[in-house]
Formats: sequence, structure tokens, C-alpha cells
Amino acid sequence: MISFRPTAEENRLLQTARDFAREQIRPQARLAEELRQVPQPLLHQASDLGFFLLELPEWMDGLEFPLTTQVQVLEELAYGDLGILQGFPGTADASSFFRLLSENPQIKNSQCSASGCGFGFLDAVSWTSEWGQSLRLERVAHGYELNGHSQPIRLAHQVAGIIACFRDEDGEWLVLLLHQSETPWTVLAGDIRLGLLAAGCGRISFDAVWVPEHAVLARGEEAQLLVEQALSRIYIRQAAAEVGLAKAALDYTVEYTAQRQAFGQPIAQFQGVSFLVADMEMEQRAVHHLVWRAAAATDLGQENAFQYALEAILRSHRAVSFVTNHAVQLLGGHGFVQEYPVEKWMRDAQAQVMLYGCESQFLNQLGERTVSGQNYNRSTLTVK
Amino acid sequence: MISFRPTAEENRLLQTARDFAREQIRPQARLAEELRQVPQPLLHQASDLGFFLLELPEWMDGLEFPLTTQVQVLEELAYGDLGILQGFPGTADASSFFRLLSENPQIKNSQCSASGCGFGFLDAVSWTSEWGQSLRLERVAHGYELNGHSQPIRLAHQVAGIIACFRDEDGEWLVLLLHQSETPWTVLAGDIRLGLLAAGCGRISFDAVWVPEHAVLARGEEAQLLVEQALSRIYIRQAAAEVGLAKAALDYTVEYTAQRQAFGQPIAQFQGVSFLVADMEMEQRAVHHLVWRAAAATDLGQENAFQYALEAILRSHRAVSFVTNHAVQLLGGHGFVQEYPVEKWMRDAQAQVMLYGCESQFLNQLGERTVSGQNYNRSTLTVK
Repeated sequence: MISFRPTAEENRLLQTARDFAREQIRPQARLAEELRQVPQPLLHQASDLGFFLLELPEWMDGLEFPLTTQVQVLEELAYGDLGILQGFPGTADASSFFRLLSENPQIKNSQCSASGCGFGFLDAVSWTSEWGQSLRLERVAHGYELNGHSQPIRLAHQVAGIIACFRDEDGEWLVLLLHQSETPWTVLAGDIRLGLLAAGCGRISFDAVWVPEHAVLARGEEAQLLVEQALSRIYIRQAAAEVGLAKAALDYTVEYTAQRQAFGQPIAQFQGVSFLVADMEMEQRAVHHLVWRAAAATDLGQENAFQYALEAILRSHRAVSFVTNHAVQLLGGHGFVQEYPVEKWMRDAQAQVMLYGCESQFLNQLGERTVSGQNYNRSTLTVK
Repeated sequence: MISFRPTAEENRLLQTARDFAREQIRPQARLAEELRQVPQPLLHQASDLGFFLLELPEWMDGLEFPLTTQVQVLEELAYGDLGILQGFPGTADASSFFRLLSENPQIKNSQCSASGCGFGFLDAVSWTSEWGQSLRLERVAHGYELNGHSQPIRLAHQVAGIIACFRDEDGEWLVLLLHQSETPWTVLAGDIRLGLLAAGCGRISFDAVWVPEHAVLARGEEAQLLVEQALSRIYIRQAAAEVGLAKAALDYTVEYTAQRQAFGQPIAQFQGVSFLVADMEMEQRAVHHLVWRAAAATDLGQENAFQYALEAILRSHRAVSFVTNHAVQLLGGHGFVQEYPVEKWMRDAQAQVMLYGCESQFLNQLGERTVSGQNYNRSTLTVK
């Protein structure tokens, strides 16, 4: 049974996340951007506090929290800095697959564990991933051959394994577990400049690599349902992080405009400012609720869960862009210099939106599901 | 008399601008960003072609084009790259003051000329400028004392003179012509990172500097009208540049989405994409017309000219943010890496919006004018 009320232990973690985000993460955000990775001491602290374990299953020493708890923790951490959160190895999106595949023997036998969990997630199935990748999976004897390169993924240089979703030449869905030792790849790091510089984004490139049969974790309808369930969890967790970033930008703007004076009064008292700040706050709050609703639906296994997740990520993408753009503007001359955090938040927001499917992709997916009636008449999502 | 139809000479300049933007400016955009200034050969070419002279009066060897012609040229140049356009010294905003003050003896006698025209514009009057500055102008014997620092201005390190708008302690409006030799200042360059890196933005700092009486170009109501007229011209020229940038991002996105395939068809054929691209195009086109309308009203000396200018810059700020943000998203994995121009365009757009007054500032100004009936019942704008 899934609990909707955080336990005392979860509440302590939430308070710890809040303090950690404000006292440790926020002050090191620029440093992490310069280093292009999270500073080692910060990584160790975050690891000791259990922040890499939220989504992982218990058999991997994970905390296996319900999503309703996780979204709160992720909001708090992203409030510190999204770039650093996305540079945490343990929060990688593959965790959701490990959680859903707890019973899978290949997963059980693999070297996945909480401590050494350098796993990435590569989505070559949903339309999202077509947007910057050229991957082809072809049937060969005793397995598949893999060619091309992926969309950018986080921590590309650090992952020893990849959970990858594909459709083969016949359109069959496949979920694969790739180990670099067995299925060698190279990383095209590119010159990634816009944002999330501590997250080590890069493309994964395969050159006629053979993928053995036993790398297949799921296929066909089972794979399709698995991907949908995993993407729900990934989108909700990412949307929560975006809500946290938007909150940070909003709070900063509110504080700035309340203090900054013009014509003898705080600029927040000008309607052009107050109306915009109110708009930013409404947007941030609305998305906050959407993300919670989606998390609850997923925890309860409700049949609309995937639709809720799509709506949450689409709307949080819009909110985090809107709020961070206006934060830059409302700080005026301070908005675009590095002494203030908002220019970084705006860049991070756009990089984040890019990494997890842009507005148009979700519009298409939601539109297609609505037109086909899928959103309202859907069989229960269970992986057989 | 002001002509609304470009002459043959102006048409040739327009075609030259188009070619120059595509063949010279665009390919050197990244280089200029790395150098943090426009490459010298490009500067010489642009100077030879007359692009620094568009707004300058004829007695300064300027071209003194009507705004309706200038907006077309500026759109073309910004289509190449806004960062480079903003790094052109001769297009600095002070030109509009020189143009409006052709009869002023201090201007006539100053060393202003087209060739050595390193003049900046510092707006410490409109609410815009309060947004990142701390300037105080106090009456002292035979002049004023100036303290504090300005908002970021373009080419801060290169200017030898500054046209500055102030209100003194009694609220009287003043327009000053400051020479660095007479009124020494320092430049706080800061770490400006977000965008327009070739434009050399920095704050101008004054430390108890004495400003002599003869630096005053205009005061009182005359100064107020002068500032309004100059800001009209500045806003319209900047809005035109934003329209050009938005057009570049739009065209690039249209071409990309038409070519990029997913599920066996160009991604432009997905409704989520086509609807967004259509939105981007409508916005770009709407602003294009607004800017033209404002330019025509200003050229004709219509009484609503300042309101049109405010509306044009407010709407073009929104459009350039909207279009460049979505360009990043629609390019997906290509959107945020430096191999493609759109991430730079997005950063440049936000830096541009910051430099010329953000949405909330114009909302306040427009709101105030509408409420007070100023927009509809305004005496003719003439500097006595």
C-alpha cells in the first residue's frame, strides 16, 4: 500500500533537503557550473543524506519513496540549484526502470546497486527522442546491431550502463539494458553551453555495436507499458524539479522587487511589476498542484496517470520558462550578469526543457491521445 | 519633408544590408562572441558601407534616413546577428540626440563627428534606468555633482562621450553632454555572460564628479520633450533589430522543421510543431507592422508617436523572447548546443530585452499614460 502522508522519517528528509539546498547547494551553484560537474564534497554529502536513493527500489538499498514524497524533496533540492541536482548521479532517470523492474531477473543479476549506480536513460522511442538522434536498431543473429547517436543525456561520460527504449525495424518495442563493457559506445560531448553545465550532457554514439539477446529487458506490449509507466515517473520527477527552480526564481524576484526602490517606493508597488509577479506566482502554483496530482495518480496506479504526467511536464516547461524569463527582466541591469543567479536559472530552465521534450512534442502526444480517446478509455497500466 | 518611399539609393543600401548580413555578419557571429567585440575587418566593412550613419544628421556626415527606412536596414542587419549589430559603435543610441539637437550650439561645437563618434547614451530618467542604477545628480556651484553608477550600457569601454538624461534633486529634467576628459568616469564591466557578448556592455561609474554648467544641453520641459522624442527613435530602432532577430530564429526553425524527419515525415507536419511555428510567425509579423507604424508616426511627427514607440518595443520584447525560446525547443537536442545558432539568439534576445527596458516597465508607462488620458490628448511634440 502506498502512503500519501509523509512519514516522520520522510518529513525529516524533507527538512534536511530544504536546509541542504539553501546552505550547501545554492552557494556552490556557480562553482559547479565552472567545474562542469558537482564538487566532490557536495556529492558525498548528498549521497550520505540519501538524495540519490529516493526512487530506487529497496533491494538496491533505495528508499523507494512514493512519488508524492519525492516531488517535495526534488522541489526543495532544485530550489537550491537545478544544475547541481541534474549533476547528481543517483537521481538519474534509469532509477524508475529499476523500480518498475524489481522482479526482472536480468536486473537482479546485473551489477546495479545504489552505491555504484552510474546508469543513464536513453529514450529512442517516444517522439521526444527522435528530436536529436539518429539511432537504428536492426535484427542480426542472436541479437541486434545498433548504429547512430542519441539525443543529449545527462552525465553521459559517467554512465557505465544505459537503460534504452527502442522500436526495431518492425516497429516492435524493446527495452534494453546496455553495459559499456559489453556494448561499447563513445560519448559526443559537444560544446554544450546554454545551461545545466554541471550535468555533463552529451550524446551517446554507437558504431555497429552488437547487442546480445539477453540485453532485452522487455519487448512488445510489455515494453510499451513499461516505457509509459517509467516516463510517467520521469516526467513527474522532472516537473517537480522545474517547479522548484521556478519557485527559486519567483522568491528571488519577489524579494528583489520589494527591496529595490524607484521614485521613492519599492518597484513591487508599480502595477507593471506587481501584475507580472502575480502572474508568475499563479503559474508556479498551478503547476505545483498539477505535479502533485500527477504524482498521486501515479502512486495510486490510476488509469489517467500518464496523461496527468504529460500535462504536468508540458505545463511545468511553460511555467519555468515564463518565470525565469521574467525574473531576468524584473531584475533589469542585474538580471543578466553572473553576480545574480537569475540569468543562470533562465539558461538552466531552457536546457532542462530541451532535455525532457519540448512543448510541441507534448502537444502532439496529448493531442493524439485526446483525439483517439485514449486519455479517457484506457486499460489499467500494469506490466505483466 | 519626410519621404516614406525609399529612394533608389536607400533601396541599394537595403539590398547591401541584406547581403552583408547573410554573407559577412552571420558567419562571424560566434567569433565576435568569443572575441567579445566585433572583428576589426568587419567593423571597417560596416563603416565603409555607411551602416553607422543611418540616424546621424547630415552636418555630422550622417545619412539622416527617415525611421521607416532605418527600420528596414536594421531588421536586415540584426537578421545576420544582433550581437554584432549591437557591437557597431556608430549605431549607438546617442545618434538620435545628435539628430534632434542639430541646432544646438554645444553639440555643433563638440568634437562629435561620424568618423570618431564614440558616444553612449545613459538614461537615468525614465523608470527603465532606475532598474539597475544608483545615479544622483546634485546642484553645486557652477554646475552639478554626479555620483553612483549607471545601468549597463553598450560599448561602455569605447565611449569618449555620453549623452545622459537626468532629473536633479528638485525633479527638474536635464540632458547632459559628458566628455570623459572633462567628467572622468570608470567602467564597471562586470561579468556579463547571458548574451550580446560582442556589445561590450558595462556600467558607467562616477565618483563625486563635477559637471560644468555648459554640459547642459536642455533642461526642464524642453529636456522632457527631447528625451521623449529621442526615446521614441531609440525604441523603434531597437524594436526593429528585435524583429530582425526574431525573423532569423523563425526562418531557421521553419527550415529545420521542414527538413528534420520523424516517423517518416518532416516534423513540421506534426500539429504540435506546425501550430507553434504558426504562432511564432504571427507574432513576428504582428510586431513587424507595429514597428513600421511607430516609425511612420514618428517620421510624420504624429502626436501618438511616443505611445506607438512604447507599444512597439513592449511587443517586440515579447515576440523576440517567445520566438527564440521556442526556436531552442523546436530544435530539440540541437537547440542548446553552440553548433546551431538558436541558443545564442535566445541569450541575445534576453540581454537585449534587459538593456532596453523590460515588459513591466513599459506596462507601467503605458498604463500610466492611458489612465491619465495622455495617450489621447497630447500637445504636439516639438522641442522649442
